[in-house]
Amino acid sequence: MSNNILDNIRIVMIHTSHPGNIGAAARAMKVMGLSDLCLVNPKIFPDDQANAMSANATDILENANVVSTLAEAIADCQLVVGSSARHERTLSWDIQDSRECGETIAHYANKANNAKVALLFGRESSGLTNDELAVCQHLVHIPTNPDYSSLNVASAVQLLAYECRIASLKGGSTPNNNNIEKEQEDEWVTSEEIDGFFQHLKQVMEEVDFLDPANPRHLMTRLRRLYSRSSMTRSELNIQRGFLAAIQKKKN
Amino acid sequence: MSNNILDNIRIVMIHTSHPGNIGAAARAMKVMGLSDLCLVNPKIFPDDQANAMSANATDILENANVVSTLAEAIADCQLVVGSSARHERTLSWDIQDSRECGETIAHYANKANNAKVALLFGRESSGLTNDELAVCQHLVHIPTNPDYSSLNVASAVQLLAYECRIASLKGGSTPNNNNIEKEQEDEWVTSEEIDGFFQHLKQVMEEVDFLDPANPRHLMTRLRRLYSRSSMTRSELNIQRGFLAAIQKKKN
Repeated sequence: MSNNILDNIRIVMIHTSHPGNIGAAARAMKVMGLSDLCLVNPKIFPDDQANAMSANATDILENANVVSTLAEAIADCQLVVGSSARHERTLSWDIQDSRECGETIAHYANKANNAKVALLFGRESSGLTNDELAVCQHLVHIPTNPDYSSLNVASAVQLLAYECRIASLKGGSTPNNNNIEKEQEDEWVTSEEIDGFFQHLKQVMEEVDFLDPANPRHLMTRLRRLYSRSSMTRSELNIQRGFLAAIQKKKN
Repeated sequence: MSNNILDNIRIVMIHTSHPGNIGAAARAMKVMGLSDLCLVNPKIFPDDQANAMSANATDILENANVVSTLAEAIADCQLVVGSSARHERTLSWDIQDSRECGETIAHYANKANNAKVALLFGRESSGLTNDELAVCQHLVHIPTNPDYSSLNVASAVQLLAYECRIASLKGGSTPNNNNIEKEQEDEWVTSEEIDGFFQHLKQVMEEVDFLDPANPRHLMTRLRRLYSRSSMTRSELNIQRGFLAAIQKKKN
């Protein structure tokens, strides 16, 4: 990982339909100093239209990582933020506006914390699915016109990349929310480690007959949502995995 | 004029080459709640590509005012702001960054001041000319990547419309600069009134043999730049026009 805040921020575009939007997003990233682009199952890529719309940001496209699942895209990330056009009032996520979110991201990605951050953008037509939202610690909402909120996906990349840049110019030192503090010397865990924790948790819940695989009642989804609302440090994760292991040991 | 801040803000696109950029700018405006678009000598307009890129913001395009000179576009405006990709270090303008500028614009356009504001965007290739910059009270700079500052013109509209919207949501009440205060009951003058003042000034300068029409030595350009740096109220303008008239009367 780099000590440069902007180098720690990855733009993840999921199932993008129009290659022109990928190119425009690459240009939008580069003009704000971002360079890490990951494409999850793009409909058409690489493509001439993407190259044309990128202006001279073709290096971003050439270096883009193309993967087939979101899990691969965010495996090494400690913070995952989902962009949402809708105002997800009914869900229990921490929703930040774009300005606040830029500050949060820069704070995670700064020299002291040095976390890898993924910023997710969904399909042009429908945004992020519930499954994709479920891996996010935060949602970010751009305060658009309530009567016309049809923000182009590359424009959304442009606005959030801009907010990240502005916050990074301030050093990522002025976060607006308090639940992102961690102990000195401790590290945020990655999405991959969280996946491992949930697999372990599910296994133990089944072993103690708390979770019935034939009738799971959305239990894991609800737990994921609970844990997603705040980041987890490695020592916190270790405590919980140790607890799970202890349960298993006792049972056998 | 409306009491709604965003209704007082006009986007002026000058000599735009690609109709797709006009359409994308219309969408960018509408998604942030702006609606007043003026096009100065667009290369191709109206156009199918503009309509396609506007998504459903075709009302903005249909209501756009197409004019042949910048003077027409800003005649009724009390504040004119030029967007500049370059960092105009050598010029003596008040340059604000995009955030600060959004606050300044919202402050002018708010309920108390109710000024009409024009935000100028130049050609895709070369931006605003020196003559166009000369009518601006402020310049706004978006802090892009110094190694790659190729911001698309519709993206620039998107970012500044966003900053205007964010500032307007705060009521336009927290300006960062101090030279925009005016006396109660006083009003900012329009660009047309300023033009009238400069014509009068030039005439008097010629009448008293201070300005030689055969050898003007950029005198008027320099004076325009001086006056452009701050807005003028109607009472301030009246004082100066009264002074000019007094000079003329004395001379005859």
